[in-house]
Amino acid sequence: MNATDARPLAAIDIGGTKIAAAVVGDDGTLLARTQRPTPSTADGETVLRAVLDALEELAEAPAWAGVRGLGVGSAGPVDTGRGTVSPVNIGGWRHFPLVERLSGHPAATDLPVVLAGDGIAIAAAEHRFGAARPYDNVLCMVVSTGVGGGLILGGALHTGTTGNAGHIGHITVDLDGEPCPCGSRGCLELFASGTAIARYALRSGWQPSTEDRSAVAVAASARAGDPVALAAYDRAARALAAGIAATATLVELDAVVIGGGVAQVGDLLLDPLRGHLTTYAALPFAAGIKVHRALLGTDAGLVGAAAVAAHRLGG
Amino acid sequence: MNATDARPLAAIDIGGTKIAAAVVGDDGTLLARTQRPTPSTADGETVLRAVLDALEELAEAPAWAGVRGLGVGSAGPVDTGRGTVSPVNIGGWRHFPLVERLSGHPAATDLPVVLAGDGIAIAAAEHRFGAARPYDNVLCMVVSTGVGGGLILGGALHTGTTGNAGHIGHITVDLDGEPCPCGSRGCLELFASGTAIARYALRSGWQPSTEDRSAVAVAASARAGDPVALAAYDRAARALAAGIAATATLVELDAVVIGGGVAQVGDLLLDPLRGHLTTYAALPFAAGIKVHRALLGTDAGLVGAAAVAAHRLGG
Repeated sequence: MNATDARPLAAIDIGGTKIAAAVVGDDGTLLARTQRPTPSTADGETVLRAVLDALEELAEAPAWAGVRGLGVGSAGPVDTGRGTVSPVNIGGWRHFPLVERLSGHPAATDLPVVLAGDGIAIAAAEHRFGAARPYDNVLCMVVSTGVGGGLILGGALHTGTTGNAGHIGHITVDLDGEPCPCGSRGCLELFASGTAIARYALRSGWQPSTEDRSAVAVAASARAGDPVALAAYDRAARALAAGIAATATLVELDAVVIGGGVAQVGDLLLDPLRGHLTTYAALPFAAGIKVHRALLGTDAGLVGAAAVAAHRLGG
Repeated sequence: MNATDARPLAAIDIGGTKIAAAVVGDDGTLLARTQRPTPSTADGETVLRAVLDALEELAEAPAWAGVRGLGVGSAGPVDTGRGTVSPVNIGGWRHFPLVERLSGHPAATDLPVVLAGDGIAIAAAEHRFGAARPYDNVLCMVVSTGVGGGLILGGALHTGTTGNAGHIGHITVDLDGEPCPCGSRGCLELFASGTAIARYALRSGWQPSTEDRSAVAVAASARAGDPVALAAYDRAARALAAGIAATATLVELDAVVIGGGVAQVGDLLLDPLRGHLTTYAALPFAAGIKVHRALLGTDAGLVGAAAVAAHRLGG
């Protein structure tokens, strides 16, 4: 448990769709891995059972022997001080005492358990092993079904008191905008999530060429030159630029790293984003922020849960 | 120069209207003070001469004898790494090497010079001596001719790499809003500054009862029940709520402290602000943020410049 401890960490990543668990090496490689679907509409104990199943399976892997701690990344909101989670998309868990329930489990006996929000986990992963590595002040975002994020400030994770800092998907970029399921209005997520891009395209008269009405299909139309589809991505890029610029203006950022399903369309989103940043990030200290694609893929949440635990436990 | 050094500090506060200088005691009291108008349209050397005049006058006060450093708060943007300032409203100063010019002056020989943006200086003052004292995570704002701010995170000033963090007046709260002189669009300042409140009221048909067309006169009409004047303050409060909520959602805040001329209207602004925060600060970790009026008055910039210097130099 010191700054040079290279023993692996166990990691669990809990999202609305899947629960993944892994043994993660000091270099971010997965030494063992398992996953199962999240029973997201079930009661809390059923969801916990799925997490414990994954943990128990993992604990039988040879790599488990050297594990020195357990990092847990969870969809938010979380409360890292209390060790509880209340993921929006897992209704059975409200102030669920996840850390206590995991710490008490035989497979995790004597292992320190470190909880983090999923946005912060991904920021930790990109900062330790990915595109955020060169930077001390960086916002890491996931643009996918929702929009999330995490902040590195002054070279360290900025988690906030309860572990929820970096929730950029729920900052208001349109004062008079539509109501958001979170309770606020005009949130960035209502413009830039995959769901929002597809909804806006359909409302604006986009004609899907197949059954697929997702943001991926909108991207295909945009690449074929469809102006409505292009406008849907441009609108998402503009809202992202306003949100990123607000963050840079509030805390000063060197760079933003963007991952998640929607970001996989690449330049179709990132080129207009860079363009709109020149408008919205206008003050000299906010201008010139670098935009990078995330380097870690679908296992970023696992690598990140381990990275947060390493950060907290040393090593 | 250690953590218990109680010797006074010299402070200079440079704004678009006035240049003030003081010797500030360890308890935040002013032991000597002088000020002169800012020759804001003059060339850079003339502006510097006004600053040096203030400094030279102050250096003759008996209290100067014990001074252990010089804190300088300046209208922004600043670059604290380079020691330069480029205040929007002082055109003669662009990347002006203020720290170097002050350090080379006979009155400041052997004194360490610490530069800060004015928003951060005010945050330091409120955190050390004012309404922000009980909090580790707090945004301090000035709502006046412009809208500025500074952040305390984890109990410490969050200055950002170049000393400009906390520039909340220039975050976008309306993606499609009017162009802002800063180059961006829909900035909070365009809704919530005194100028913006008066302009919106006039545009909406407010009938001033005297020659005074300022936000103070709009406040008087609002107190007399004028619905247009009330709507102007409500609109400002709503934009402030969106900006404060965005900050709380990004970094987690315990409280916001609001000072400046517009905030002096008190509940006329703060009551609707508290109401709108319940909408815009919707996520549980952002909800419940405390709203306080600033406790320090017009000398907050001086007290703050000294507080930043104390923070940097120890004591």
